[in-house]
Order: sequence, then C-alpha cells, then structure tokens
Amino acid sequence: MKNNYNKIAGKDTGRLIAISDAVFGVAMTLLVLEIKVPEIEGDDKELIAAFVKLMPKFLVYFLSFMTAGIFWMGQSAQFEHIKKSDRNLSWITLIFLLFVSVLPFTTAFLGDYISHNFAIGIYWINILILGMILYISWNYAEKNGFIDDEVKQNISGAIKRRIIVSQSLYLIGALLGFVNPYLGIGVIIAIQLNYAFAFFNRKNK
Amino acid sequence: MKNNYNKIAGKDTGRLIAISDAVFGVAMTLLVLEIKVPEIEGDDKELIAAFVKLMPKFLVYFLSFMTAGIFWMGQSAQFEHIKKSDRNLSWITLIFLLFVSVLPFTTAFLGDYISHNFAIGIYWINILILGMILYISWNYAEKNGFIDDEVKQNISGAIKRRIIVSQSLYLIGALLGFVNPYLGIGVIIAIQLNYAFAFFNRKNK
Amino acid sequence: MKNNYNKIAGKDTGRLIAISDAVFGVAMTLLVLEIKVPEIEGDDKELIAAFVKLMPKFLVYFLSFMTAGIFWMGQSAQFEHIKKSDRNLSWITLIFLLFVSVLPFTTAFLGDYISHNFAIGIYWINILILGMILYISWNYAEKNGFIDDEVKQNISGAIKRRIIVSQSLYLIGALLGFVNPYLGIGVIIAIQLNYAFAFFNRKNK
Amino acid sequence: MKNNYNKIAGKDTGRLIAISDAVFGVAMTLLVLEIKVPEIEGDDKELIAAFVKLMPKFLVYFLSFMTAGIFWMGQSAQFEHIKKSDRNLSWITLIFLLFVSVLPFTTAFLGDYISHNFAIGIYWINILILGMILYISWNYAEKNGFIDDEVKQNISGAIKRRIIVSQSLYLIGALLGFVNPYLGIGVIIAIQLNYAFAFFNRKNK
Repeated sequence: MKNNYNKIAGKDTGRLIAISDAVFGVAMTLLVLEIKVPEIEGDDKELIAAFVKLMPKFLVYFLSFMTAGIFWMGQSAQFEHIKKSDRNLSWITLIFLLFVSVLPFTTAFLGDYISHNFAIGIYWINILILGMILYISWNYAEKNGFIDDEVKQNISGAIKRRIIVSQSLYLIGALLGFVNPYLGIGVIIAIQLNYAFAFFNRKNK
Repeated sequence: MKNNYNKIAGKDTGRLIAISDAVFGVAMTLLVLEIKVPEIEGDDKELIAAFVKLMPKFLVYFLSFMTAGIFWMGQSAQFEHIKKSDRNLSWITLIFLLFVSVLPFTTAFLGDYISHNFAIGIYWINILILGMILYISWNYAEKNGFIDDEVKQNISGAIKRRIIVSQSLYLIGALLGFVNPYLGIGVIIAIQLNYAFAFFNRKNK
Repeated sequence: MKNNYNKIAGKDTGRLIAISDAVFGVAMTLLVLEIKVPEIEGDDKELIAAFVKLMPKFLVYFLSFMTAGIFWMGQSAQFEHIKKSDRNLSWITLIFLLFVSVLPFTTAFLGDYISHNFAIGIYWINILILGMILYISWNYAEKNGFIDDEVKQNISGAIKRRIIVSQSLYLIGALLGFVNPYLGIGVIIAIQLNYAFAFFNRKNK
Repeated sequence: MKNNYNKIAGKDTGRLIAISDAVFGVAMTLLVLEIKVPEIEGDDKELIAAFVKLMPKFLVYFLSFMTAGIFWMGQSAQFEHIKKSDRNLSWITLIFLLFVSVLPFTTAFLGDYISHNFAIGIYWINILILGMILYISWNYAEKNGFIDDEVKQNISGAIKRRIIVSQSLYLIGALLGFVNPYLGIGVIIAIQLNYAFAFFNRKNK
C-alpha cells in the first residue's frame, strides 16, 4: 500500500509553491500587527517622540521581513529548477515553512533582548535550520532526478556553495555575538543586506 | 433554473486549490501569534527560563502545523487526480477548509488541557471530521467521473484505505487517551509523525 | 493619457482571481482568532461547561465562513466565464473584496446583538451590497464583451436571476427580523444553508 | 560564483506575482481585526450610537484598503507587461511589499492623529516610497529588456508619467495638509477616489 500511495502523492510542484507563497505572505505581514499606533495626547512634538519610540519595533519588522525575503528568494531559486516533487520533498518543504513561520517570533525575541547571547543563539539557530533544510531539499531533488540534468551540472554546485558560504558567515556572526552582541547582530544584518542589496553595486543581465 | 445554475458553477479545480492553499497558509501561520515574546528583566539565565516556559506553546504550534500539513498533503494528493469539479465538490471542500481553520483552536485546546478527556475528544473529532470529508470528497469525485479512469483503478482503493487505516489509528489513540491522556496523545502524535516522517526509513522513487 | 493608461491596465483575470482568493482565505480564517481557549481550573465537567459557553462564537464563526463561502462560490461562478478584465472590473472586484473582508465584523456584530434590529440590518446591508456588486460586475463584464457569446445566451439570465432571487429572500429574512429577530436570522440562515447544502437533495451531473 | 548564482535566480514572474497577491491580501484584510465589536448593554439606540463611534475606524479601514488597492492596480498593470524577472527585480518587489504591509499602520496612525502634520507626513512618505519603487521597478524592467519592445514604445511613457503625476498630486495634498490637515487629507482622498472611481464618468472599452 505504501508504494501505491507514493505514486498517489502530488508530483507537480504547483501546490508546494502556492502553499509556500501563502505562508511566506502571512509570515511577512503578521508582525506588523505588533506595531500598535501609540496613544498620546499632545502636539506634533509628542507624537514624533512616540513614533521614535516605535523605531525598534519597525527595525525588527524590517529585519524579519528581510530574513523571510532572503529565504523566499532562496527557495524560489530552487523551485525554478525543481520540476517534479514527491511526498518527501513536500514534507521537507512543509518543515521549511514551519521554521519560516517562526521567524517573526525569533526576530522579535532578538529585538527585545538584543544584548542577550541566548536571543542571538535562537535567532541564529532559526536561520541555520532554514539554511540546512534548503540544502537538504536541493540535495534530495537532485538525487531523485527532479532537476534537469543540464541545470544540475551548471548550477547545482553554485546553489550548494552559496548556502554553505552564507551559513558560515551567519555562524561567524553568531560567534562574534557571543563576544559582543551588537557586533554579532551587525555582522548578521550586514550579511543579509549583502544578499538583499548586492545588486546596487554589481552588474545584472 | 437550478439545472442551469449547476452548469454555471465552476468546473475547473484551479480556484478550489487556490482558496485551499490560502486557508491552509493562514491557518498554519496564525497560531504563532499566540506565542508572545516573554517580558523579563535579567540575564541570559532568566531569559532561557522564560523561553523554556514557552516550550509547550511551541509544541502545540508544531503539532497544529503538522496536523494541518498532513491534511494538506492528503488533499493535495486527491486534487492531483481530481480533474474537474462542480458546486457540490466546491462546498465539500469549503466545509473541509472550515474544519482546517478550526485546527489551531482544537490543538491549542488540547495543549492547555492535555490531561482532560474532553480536550482529547474534541481534537480527535476534528481529525475525524477532516478524514471523513476527505473520504467523502474522493468518493464524490469518483462517482461523478471527475477522476481519470486509469487513475481510479490503480489508486482509488489505496486512497480510501489510507484514510480508513489512519482514522482507525486515530480512534485507537483517542480511546487510549481515555485510559491515559498522555498515552493517547503520544499515540496520536506517533501516528502523525509516521505519516510525516515515514520517508526517513523508506525508499522513494 | 487616460486612454493610454486604460490600455495599460491588466486585461488578464489571473491576478484578480488570485487577490480574491487571498482576501477570502484570510477573511474566512481571521475570525477563529476571536475564539480564545478558555482558562479554567477543574475537571472535564467544568471544561465542557466552558466549551459550551464558546458555542455562540463557533456558530458565528461557522456563519461567517458560510456567508463568505457563498459569495466566493458566486464570484467563482462568474469568473469561470469572465475571460477578460479591465481597470473598472478590477475596481469593482476590489470593492467587492472590501465588503467581503468586513463580513467577519458584521457577522460577529450580529452574533453579539442577535436580538437587535440594528445588527440584523447591518448584516443584511453587508449581504445586500455583496449581491449588488456581483450583479454589477456580471453586468459590466457582459456589456463590455468579457464573456463568451455562447455562455452569455445560456446562463447570463440564470446568473442574474439567481442574484435577484437570493437577495429578495434575504430582504424577506431581514424584514421578518424586524418582526422577530430570531425568525429573521433563522430565515437568513435557512437561505444560506439552502445554497450551501442544496446538493444533498438534488441530482448533480 | 556571483555570476553563476545570477543565472540561478528565478526568471519567471509567477512567484513574484503570487507573493505579491498574498502580502496584499493579508495587508488589506488585517486592519479589520482592529475593529472590535462594541460591548454595550441596552437597546437599538445605544447600539447605533456605539456603531457610529466605530465609523472613524471603518473610514480608516476603507482608506487603507483603497490605498493598497491603488498600488495593487499599479503593480498589476506593470506585471501585465513585465515578462521576465531577475534577483534585482525580485528584491525591488519585496521592498515594495514591505512598504505595502506597513500601510495599515500608517493609515491607522493618520486616522488617530488626523490633525497632526506629522501623521500626514508619515502617510505621505509611505505613499511616496511606494510610488518611487513602482517607478524604479518599471525603469529597471525596461532597461533590462524584461518588457516587450512594442509595449515599451506605446505605454512606457504613460506608466511613468502616471506615477509622476499622481505623486505630484499627493505632494500637493501633503503640503496643503501642513496648512490645514483636513484640507490635505481631503485632497489626498480625492486623488485616490479619482483613481479608484474614475470609471464612473469615463468610457471604457
């Protein structure tokens, strides 16, 4: 029966992509709910002061959105080439999404306890797990012939290397964080900005 | 008029799948909102203690995500083969989604009252209903010729059998829960993990 | 410039359908957040009592989901035949979605003040507006040649008649509600169930 | 490696559109959560009074939905013609979505502090940034050959001009807001309604 059911399970990647976009979309937007309009009585000056107080929350929101965006890009890049799927790849993707949906929490946790090693550790573990699952999913897809051979030769190494390089950088950031929290966070954010904004100083075709 | 309108109703499964992914995506992600960043003052040690206290909530979240994932997989597997739809199948699917969106509640209810038979019962009824609707929807699609004949012969039995087997296991889990709550929950989680992670010890092609 | 821009605006219905499914998906699922797990200390008996107290909230949730479902079905049926779109139809659809997203509120409002004429009135106005916009959007699509001619002849009348008939029934329900609230609500729910579950006693092909 | 990875990144616009619809769908619907059913005891008269008190919140919700709708329309119009994508365009779109998801906050902020210049300023900056990113994304797509040549000649100027004209109007609205807040808001809303409802008095084909 198991074998039969394996044949049953969805082979098209369409729904995996659709559920991914739904979860990413919600996870990216949810945290904005945490930013409440301040309740003040007074003039513009006091309103500005109240708004400035919200800045850390906005920064956490931006960071959370950014981190989710980076992994959305990574997953998109993979599924551009993964042409088929099976139950296992579906579950790998669902577990990936589980850790995506936890990002708003771990980012807010980091935002509130930025000077605590533990918060940096948790945030880093979340990123580490996401990177690991991306690696596993690509590896699994490659081994099971879900990727065009031509693509495989040209870019598979690049995709894996990219994950390993970025995760190594994140590890360095986390380790630095144990020396000096702000330094660690700074490095992690710099890595993320590098991935996000790299395009400002490089040619694209 | 009724007959005419029946012809009107959507025959393509595209939107049924899209609304399903939207509801699943939201339902899977919503519960993370319940996990609030703890407010403490102190060093890492106290932060770790506060974080550990959140563990039950994380477990409930994971369980909820997992259960939703299992039924998302089940529904995906069906709609891989259901090629057409009508008003009735649309409504069956909407009612299925109604009980999907209740999952975060019933799981949280179970998480808070894990030693109460009633909470196990409610959780089990939720899963039972979801299984029943999946069975009904496949049956309906089969009877109305929405499935390729070839597929029907090969896998229809397997799909139905799978639902019945898993639901029987859930029933056993629930019954055990009336003897010992933790035993019952443990069995239910084991069944779910079996469906989710079965791939670690079986060959896939 | 306006004329030029009209040519620019999206002609494909794909994104209109996608944003609709996203808004419906969120609107259908949001209200479940209002159902909080009760906090009690005690045995199963007290837990059951606390759960029973939640029943009105569940009923409201089901009603809200059902109402959204009915209009999702109605819109789906239309877009099965509307093959092209323009800026105007896009805006008609967005305004439709605006009133869809208000449904959770008006339903909860009705649930809390079921014996108040005003709450019935607001709920009915919400449904009325949704029906009117569906009528307008079909009419607009028909007049602007966004529907296949063949379809137009066969079903356009049926679609319009259906909206008018159901809205007339809702009006009667609302009017009865001014005589006796429970009677009015009962009739409105009966109408909705009729649309939702009609399939139990009619043949479908 | 960078060059290789650029080839890896998603070239199809499908997922960019999907994540956009998910974020827009959530952002449009989220704010309704802020409108709580009032808790009163009394007859219809008191209920109406409580409901009327909610009107400002409804207006803010409608305004937020409308603003999001306008930018959804603008982005839709672009992606109707942008046929390919790369990493950079993906990031431009993600940053666009970041500022879309902040709209519910800035609109609510404006709603609560409508007589404060600062709130008008923040709201206007949000709209300005969204307009700028739309301009940048179209420009980028045009320069990188992601748009059909024929389309480029006919409508590219119109799309850019439209963004500039509407943003100039918003600027005037914001400046007027510094003279008289209500006048400024009124003008901004009038501009938005003009875009949204222009169809009532113009021919469409």
